[in-house]
Amino acid sequence: MAYFRNRIPVLVLPHVPEDLSNDLMEWFSDSRSIFDMLKNIMKLSYLERMQTLLDMPKKARDIFWWPFTQHKIVSEDDITVIDSRYGENFAVFKDQDDKSLNQTFDACASWWTQGPNASLQTELARDMGYAAARFGHVMFPENVYEPALECAELLLGGVGEGWASRVYFSDNGSTAIEIALKMAFRKFCVDIGLVSETSIGDASEKQPELLVLALKGSYHGDTLGAMEAQSPSCYTGFIQQPWYTGRGLFLDPPTVFLHRSVWKLSLPAMIHNKSFAYDKMMFSSRDEIFCKSRDESDLSGIYSLYISQHLSGSMGSKYIGALIIEPVIQGAGGMLMVDPLFQRVLVNECRRRKIPVIFDEVFTGFWRLGTESAAELLGCVPDIACFAKLMTGGMIPLAVTLATNAVFTAFLGDSKLKALLHGHSYTAHATGCTAATKSIKWFKDSQMNPNVIPQGKMLKELWDFELVTQISSHPAVERVISLGTLFALELQTEGSDAGYASMYARALLQMLREDGVYMRPLGNVIYLMCGPCTPPEICYQLLVKLQRNLEEFYRVHARVETSAIVGAK
Amino acid sequence: MAYFRNRIPVLVLPHVPEDLSNDLMEWFSDSRSIFDMLKNIMKLSYLERMQTLLDMPKKARDIFWWPFTQHKIVSEDDITVIDSRYGENFAVFKDQDDKSLNQTFDACASWWTQGPNASLQTELARDMGYAAARFGHVMFPENVYEPALECAELLLGGVGEGWASRVYFSDNGSTAIEIALKMAFRKFCVDIGLVSETSIGDASEKQPELLVLALKGSYHGDTLGAMEAQSPSCYTGFIQQPWYTGRGLFLDPPTVFLHRSVWKLSLPAMIHNKSFAYDKMMFSSRDEIFCKSRDESDLSGIYSLYISQHLSGSMGSKYIGALIIEPVIQGAGGMLMVDPLFQRVLVNECRRRKIPVIFDEVFTGFWRLGTESAAELLGCVPDIACFAKLMTGGMIPLAVTLATNAVFTAFLGDSKLKALLHGHSYTAHATGCTAATKSIKWFKDSQMNPNVIPQGKMLKELWDFELVTQISSHPAVERVISLGTLFALELQTEGSDAGYASMYARALLQMLREDGVYMRPLGNVIYLMCGPCTPPEICYQLLVKLQRNLEEFYRVHARVETSAIVGAK
Repeated sequence: MAYFRNRIPVLVLPHVPEDLSNDLMEWFSDSRSIFDMLKNIMKLSYLERMQTLLDMPKKARDIFWWPFTQHKIVSEDDITVIDSRYGENFAVFKDQDDKSLNQTFDACASWWTQGPNASLQTELARDMGYAAARFGHVMFPENVYEPALECAELLLGGVGEGWASRVYFSDNGSTAIEIALKMAFRKFCVDIGLVSETSIGDASEKQPELLVLALKGSYHGDTLGAMEAQSPSCYTGFIQQPWYTGRGLFLDPPTVFLHRSVWKLSLPAMIHNKSFAYDKMMFSSRDEIFCKSRDESDLSGIYSLYISQHLSGSMGSKYIGALIIEPVIQGAGGMLMVDPLFQRVLVNECRRRKIPVIFDEVFTGFWRLGTESAAELLGCVPDIACFAKLMTGGMIPLAVTLATNAVFTAFLGDSKLKALLHGHSYTAHATGCTAATKSIKWFKDSQMNPNVIPQGKMLKELWDFELVTQISSHPAVERVISLGTLFALELQTEGSDAGYASMYARALLQMLREDGVYMRPLGNVIYLMCGPCTPPEICYQLLVKLQRNLEEFYRVHARVETSAIVGAK
Repeated sequence: MAYFRNRIPVLVLPHVPEDLSNDLMEWFSDSRSIFDMLKNIMKLSYLERMQTLLDMPKKARDIFWWPFTQHKIVSEDDITVIDSRYGENFAVFKDQDDKSLNQTFDACASWWTQGPNASLQTELARDMGYAAARFGHVMFPENVYEPALECAELLLGGVGEGWASRVYFSDNGSTAIEIALKMAFRKFCVDIGLVSETSIGDASEKQPELLVLALKGSYHGDTLGAMEAQSPSCYTGFIQQPWYTGRGLFLDPPTVFLHRSVWKLSLPAMIHNKSFAYDKMMFSSRDEIFCKSRDESDLSGIYSLYISQHLSGSMGSKYIGALIIEPVIQGAGGMLMVDPLFQRVLVNECRRRKIPVIFDEVFTGFWRLGTESAAELLGCVPDIACFAKLMTGGMIPLAVTLATNAVFTAFLGDSKLKALLHGHSYTAHATGCTAATKSIKWFKDSQMNPNVIPQGKMLKELWDFELVTQISSHPAVERVISLGTLFALELQTEGSDAGYASMYARALLQMLREDGVYMRPLGNVIYLMCGPCTPPEICYQLLVKLQRNLEEFYRVHARVETSAIVGAK
């Protein structure tokens, strides 16, 4: 009793008779009250657990304030009670006749961190417990401890290989971006002579205005600095963020997508007008889109011209002090795939102008798109890159900003005021670094992750080609993206059904949840996300379920639309 | 071998002879090679570990980018190698003759999260491992799981008791502040009719400009939104944050401190001029400073007038949309104790004007100042409050923004665009909520934390009154603050020795590190911080060490100063 500190009931049975001929009836009779107690304890414990689970939706609705959630339209029935999670699935408690726990595939995770399989989760739990016990709280500046060092070495030898030489830790993608912007601006200011050793701390003189160059539809986080680097959207309006002004030059990017079985290019209006021939451009395969030989194409020159035109105009006392892009896929913007050729040209144009290049790999990093970093897919490297989300296997917050030595050098000097004065309490916390170390190693190890093609430095194709093609041809579907662990589709919509606040996809997602697949919408874009280790067979089943429910959804929706038209008559 | 998966060497000894008369000499002889192998393995393992620890400073210096650190002035010898931590102490590896591990008291932690004792650390490690294994990654919006619910209930029943009804989770203090500002601004805009249901998402019309009301010397975090809410400082200059503009009305606060054994008041110039009599005001004890009867004093009226004058001027299209303060102690500003009467008057003046009140309790929360929240010490409640740091016992990042129901209601509506669109991937992550639940309960439980005065809802006095008084009278000391788990002193300095970038305190801190106390400076302010459970005897020893080293530091420094004057002659 003392050992378990009253956490576990301890019952003591009478001694079992030693006489082997004893029929134990007397022993059973003597033990009966103990067994009854055990039964009662188990029954009470079960009832208590059920009651706890039953009560949770109401309590949650009363006291939680969920992010990105309009509470007025969430009813108790909409709330998912998660009893536990194992690998890619969680156990959902349903208050139905059987009060059962149902296994549900987590196809979205809390913003796209779907990661470990069951074995890795177990390993992570063990390692995290160890790190917490061995290191507890450790402070980072001017200190070193093994988990932080090992994690930093892995990052520089992995996603930072060939370009990065410094690791700056923080807590989440948004903070990693704010740090990246501070790095880029300093590098830019030093390079073009906007700041000098003597001007440090001198607040008296009028300072120039620095802007970022970014793409429309990009998203870099919810803190103000990260928001300022993204183009105006529903997230940035006065009602959401009264301090947002949009400190950027925001370019419209060309996008690519799968439509009716074919990969197509869509050019923004500004380019479109000038080169009509590219409007209907198609690709023979997804691989062709990433082919480096496109650098020599006419389109490459057209992109270059388009970018130069925007960068060469007079800007008064304003300067473009950084380029920031999400390489290949813009996540929160609606899973948009930007033409990688365009991003490559953009990087080169900025390099020529001494504008530091930031890759926001918070979403795309760590195999999300099939390679460890999306920079590999893009075929060029940044000066600064941000990673978070999947880095710890989705277990625990940790973020890093990687930088080249040239960026780092811009902060060296005799005064502490020239150092980068940004930090959070849990910078490089041991438990997070430990989880990251394990996850980074595991995902890329073909012994542990059967999806990794040995030597190939990439994941095998996870989404069935035939099914993807079929879905892209469905009349309810506007476009499809399938790349690495991501499958996304945009539903065809009109008018008020479009945009972030759209409720159009809700019915379809509800059907899929009933079918054991937990998804969330981005307006009328829905997506399936698996972990880097998820077997392709599971992905196949997910697509089959999606296709089946899409068909049903379309059938009902098409009927409603028809009757609406009838009604309008 | 299979079971340990080659992680642990497995050696097999010959069978021990069963004959009891056997003198085992033959067995020892047969086993010798095995024992030799064991010895070699242990020796190699030891040498490898030593080598790893020896190599760490150089590697760290080569690849880390530490926050708030000027790398140019950090030598390899300055780097602390932390081998492990147990409770309040960490084990530091020193590359000296004995290559020993030395126990060092962590008196600062990574920005003031010093928390658990050894028992709590063990419990936290266990619970965190369990949470990681049971829940892994869980997504929060529209979902519920036990650790998040239990944590939220504890917060509302503890630091939020009597005023808060909603819990918004995020990752660190800075994000919690950005969320708080968004909440406050919305509440303000709705209350005074600046936004309506119809104006949502309408970006076309010219928007009013919202400012915060804040105190000079306050600090709320390193992301841009949090920085905008603080007054200009070395952290906010162009070289650090080119986007900082300072969107606030910043008032100079009156401060209190212990000086030459007496608690004194220092009024800012603006008040000072008008009421000279208060300039030399003294308090009979620290308790008198917090006494609510001061609300009826003349000084209370003077504060009220001073604040009203600042708030009643015409501001054109600008509005004060939020008050944000660190209750009682301004941390990063230099451990300044603001007169609590002034803050109470400030809160009341804002309430009268429908300006929502934010308490930044990231530093002050969870017993840092001797009560679970500093609001208790202040004797008034906010509309919104932010907590982080010590909430998880210093183990893992997690933050919350608590709010009243009236604030929450300002975000209800039919459109998702009216919801608070801010969130991070690891919002309410299960491991963090589990650590918070355990820490919050432990700190306030007098069974677990002997420092808690039962029913008293406060900690006993941890810093010895006599020693504190003596130190405050030392000629090297400008002022002292001792409150709850915090002891801080400002060194007397002149000219270039003052300010954040000052290196003046460095020699003193180096001496204290050699003496087993790890501290960091805030310019010429140094501080000792203990955990809520640290025995007063340990605090006593810390003060003794501080006093001893201060004496030595002063002796050397005074001599240097004298010789410098001689040299100048």
